[in-house]
Amino acid sequence: MTEPLVASSDATNISTRIERDGDEYVINGRKWFISGSADQRCKIFIVMGKTDPGAETHRQQSMVLVERDTPGMTIERHLPVMGYQDQHGHSEIVFDDVRVPATNLVRGEGDGFMIAQARLGPGRIHHAMRAIGMAERALGLMVSRAQERTAFGGPLIEQGVVQEQIANSRLEIDQARLLVQKTAWLIDQGGAKAARGEISQIKVAAPAALSAVVDRAIDVFGAAGVTEDFPIARFAAIARTLRIVDGPDAVHRRTIARVETRRERPYVESAAPTSPAPAE
Amino acid sequence: MTEPLVASSDATNISTRIERDGDEYVINGRKWFISGSADQRCKIFIVMGKTDPGAETHRQQSMVLVERDTPGMTIERHLPVMGYQDQHGHSEIVFDDVRVPATNLVRGEGDGFMIAQARLGPGRIHHAMRAIGMAERALGLMVSRAQERTAFGGPLIEQGVVQEQIANSRLEIDQARLLVQKTAWLIDQGGAKAARGEISQIKVAAPAALSAVVDRAIDVFGAAGVTEDFPIARFAAIARTLRIVDGPDAVHRRTIARVETRRERPYVESAAPTSPAPAE
Amino acid sequence: MTEPLVASSDATNISTRIERDGDEYVINGRKWFISGSADQRCKIFIVMGKTDPGAETHRQQSMVLVERDTPGMTIERHLPVMGYQDQHGHSEIVFDDVRVPATNLVRGEGDGFMIAQARLGPGRIHHAMRAIGMAERALGLMVSRAQERTAFGGPLIEQGVVQEQIANSRLEIDQARLLVQKTAWLIDQGGAKAARGEISQIKVAAPAALSAVVDRAIDVFGAAGVTEDFPIARFAAIARTLRIVDGPDAVHRRTIARVETRRERPYVESAAPTSPAPAE
Amino acid sequence: MTEPLVASSDATNISTRIERDGDEYVINGRKWFISGSADQRCKIFIVMGKTDPGAETHRQQSMVLVERDTPGMTIERHLPVMGYQDQHGHSEIVFDDVRVPATNLVRGEGDGFMIAQARLGPGRIHHAMRAIGMAERALGLMVSRAQERTAFGGPLIEQGVVQEQIANSRLEIDQARLLVQKTAWLIDQGGAKAARGEISQIKVAAPAALSAVVDRAIDVFGAAGVTEDFPIARFAAIARTLRIVDGPDAVHRRTIARVETRRERPYVESAAPTSPAPAE
Repeated sequence: MTEPLVASSDATNISTRIERDGDEYVINGRKWFISGSADQRCKIFIVMGKTDPGAETHRQQSMVLVERDTPGMTIERHLPVMGYQDQHGHSEIVFDDVRVPATNLVRGEGDGFMIAQARLGPGRIHHAMRAIGMAERALGLMVSRAQERTAFGGPLIEQGVVQEQIANSRLEIDQARLLVQKTAWLIDQGGAKAARGEISQIKVAAPAALSAVVDRAIDVFGAAGVTEDFPIARFAAIARTLRIVDGPDAVHRRTIARVETRRERPYVESAAPTSPAPAE
Repeated sequence: MTEPLVASSDATNISTRIERDGDEYVINGRKWFISGSADQRCKIFIVMGKTDPGAETHRQQSMVLVERDTPGMTIERHLPVMGYQDQHGHSEIVFDDVRVPATNLVRGEGDGFMIAQARLGPGRIHHAMRAIGMAERALGLMVSRAQERTAFGGPLIEQGVVQEQIANSRLEIDQARLLVQKTAWLIDQGGAKAARGEISQIKVAAPAALSAVVDRAIDVFGAAGVTEDFPIARFAAIARTLRIVDGPDAVHRRTIARVETRRERPYVESAAPTSPAPAE
Repeated sequence: MTEPLVASSDATNISTRIERDGDEYVINGRKWFISGSADQRCKIFIVMGKTDPGAETHRQQSMVLVERDTPGMTIERHLPVMGYQDQHGHSEIVFDDVRVPATNLVRGEGDGFMIAQARLGPGRIHHAMRAIGMAERALGLMVSRAQERTAFGGPLIEQGVVQEQIANSRLEIDQARLLVQKTAWLIDQGGAKAARGEISQIKVAAPAALSAVVDRAIDVFGAAGVTEDFPIARFAAIARTLRIVDGPDAVHRRTIARVETRRERPYVESAAPTSPAPAE
Repeated sequence: MTEPLVASSDATNISTRIERDGDEYVINGRKWFISGSADQRCKIFIVMGKTDPGAETHRQQSMVLVERDTPGMTIERHLPVMGYQDQHGHSEIVFDDVRVPATNLVRGEGDGFMIAQARLGPGRIHHAMRAIGMAERALGLMVSRAQERTAFGGPLIEQGVVQEQIANSRLEIDQARLLVQKTAWLIDQGGAKAARGEISQIKVAAPAALSAVVDRAIDVFGAAGVTEDFPIARFAAIARTLRIVDGPDAVHRRTIARVETRRERPYVESAAPTSPAPAE
């Protein structure tokens, strides 16, 4: 889905074209951050583009399948992420008059946005769950390190500032985990659509907790924390990236606010001015 | 429990003396923030003091009952809280050779600290629950106000900054509420002692959420938010106070860290330096 | 300027009407948070309202002088501010067909917005300076208290968490003070208009520093911090209010961003996508 | 100075031994994060170790010069920093019975700590200045990007949330820059020792500003922000590292607090309890 030339957080910005030509679709465009593409076992790409730019906003996009060796498709480079090159690759790929059979269309023309939304709910909770796991591991490491190290007259674990860092980390992890668990339960009960607000909540909360915990872990580890001797620096990179993938924080906060605005409130309380309005 | 002359967050600091004299206890000391004391229906005071300053740290304190009109006991003033005078009063009370029958002792000599701890667990979750309720109400008011007001070309509710404030408030409330609910469940399962870490967690998390939400509500309400026309300014005062009562945040964070340090971790991962230590 | 029925942070919202009628102006409307009005020495009110709602946005407003005892003008109540009643009063005032001589017009019709802006620059730096002073005093009190109190085995001043609170307070105060001093120098050099961005900066930075410092001071003081025995609780109320008066933070951040966007940058660096755009 | 086996933020922890043996010093120990060591132009290493572990705390350490090819000295690896390998290298180096002429001693035995402190003042302000520069550049890029990109119906630059990110960045940069400038002036006036508190202040403030600004820049750039197409991801790595090098934040905050505690205050105000202490 992601394209370098537009702000892809707004899916209506997608500029790749998928045009019908007889029994084929012709694809032109440029994508990036296509995860897994460096792995040769990745044989099929699912490409989202616009089949009908004139349709209503969320019916313009479609998805088609493209096989790895289709002529016109070039993997230009694998993108680093916060300094790290993932062995599975996050590629930039150009589609230049790439032709695929019309039967490669996924579901129907105009269904692209809907399919993406359906996948993104579960994808987002998966990201959130991984974030909780990494945060928990970083906290465990932080505690161990603080028990093992000594500075300024005693073990780090006995210093108030380190204890605050541990306490705040536990607070953030437990709260984010409970929200993830509630969201998973809601998805099980009523599907991803019913849990739309909660999915956006955990997409913000879990990476935020991870970022904060990892940042403190680096403080406790000192120089060792920025190396590859421990997984912490890598977690920091993942944490930052998780705040962008599958929708940046700002977009999810917007969703949370929208759900909140429509919430029915069992009590009635006015926020209108208490001063009498002037008589007309 | 609270005394003006010492840091009462450390209960071992308590300086009020309760001395046995024949069939009586004689109380000397000064307390403040004794809630409810302005209400004439408050007939009996439970006073904590030291019966045996030479005993081990947590066995020095005892509790005795003191009737309202006992000679030597003077309510000097009712203390304001962040600008507000509560009608039930938070008093400063002097005990000057106050004599009560020895049978007024609660449980046994030296049991004061233990009794206090037993009461504080439930007391803290009650504070946390009230904080969640106030935060939820403040958020509801914030949303209503943002829907009703217009500035810079549109309703506040459509402005990104206000949406962020609503989203962050919802995020904090829901996470704090889940933590409170989990803690209540834990208390039901195994008692307040087993949930010691979680009780400290909610004692920090819930007032923090309330403080943050109320602060944003004032932003959305503008000048009306600092008046008594809405409950928001009062909530701000309560929120600040809740971060002190029944143990300040710093003390609870210390408890959370201590519980965390003792946690058994199912996985084993070393945080020791990866560089080989020098051979001795 | 401030009115209860509209969001006054957007001055174009002002709803009070000032209509010319022969040799007089007739005022109808409702104002609140009119500071100083409880003080009988306050003999003259400067009222802003719309003389020409059809004019361009910033030429609709005018200011007129109204004497204290003019018929039709009623001080309805004095508003509390975060729990505090200021003895000089912040009043809610109704103007009901209040008539003043046309010569009471300040400068010219349509000049109201311009006059307000001219006054607000100096007014804002004055608020910022007061905030720095209060923050400095709160920090001094915090240090003294931390030196005087003992908890958990030592004076508070030797505890890492308290040291962090002191350090962060010093950091915030010094940075905010330097920004205020720079802004004052800029105003001296080129007038308030040239320092528009900086005035908005200090209007945000100084009350933010004050709020943060005071909040930590309450932590260090414990219960004493929320009483009137020390000025800290009152400072907390003032700090919160300062983030609203003379334009709320959100409006000033908008101004800072606007100035920043127009800033000329001596270096040229493109933020455009590095991927080649498709040939048309 | 930095060693993998101890918390080097506390210089008294240094475990490398430098022992006099006739006309030579014999060095045994392990160092890491020795910057510049991968560059062959680096011919001489300055090594800090303990010559007299029994001396008073700050007189145990000495510095000696070690030439690149001295037998017994092995560069084991170059350490990555938050995912990045610097071409100049941050190495882990083992000293195994490395012998250097006694004349390689810098100044005198026991002067190591003093020399380090003398160098660290200027070193820290240099780090702070670089941080300001990177933050300014990141803000410039952020503004450009926000002007160039469109999402949800308009350019990012017109969205309130992005404007807040720009405004907060400007606020933090300007305040940190002024503090750096003041500190440089103080060093010029009275030397690094007189500006000890301020040097610690900028060592905390400037990297903190950089971290915050860069984090927002990534939000505005989206996926492009985590790549190497722009310098932002690299700045994030540098920012995190700057909060550790030359003393971690926690150590500098401790210094700031200590300076603050000793500050003479021109006014006298008591923070002692206002309640009368009991008569003895």
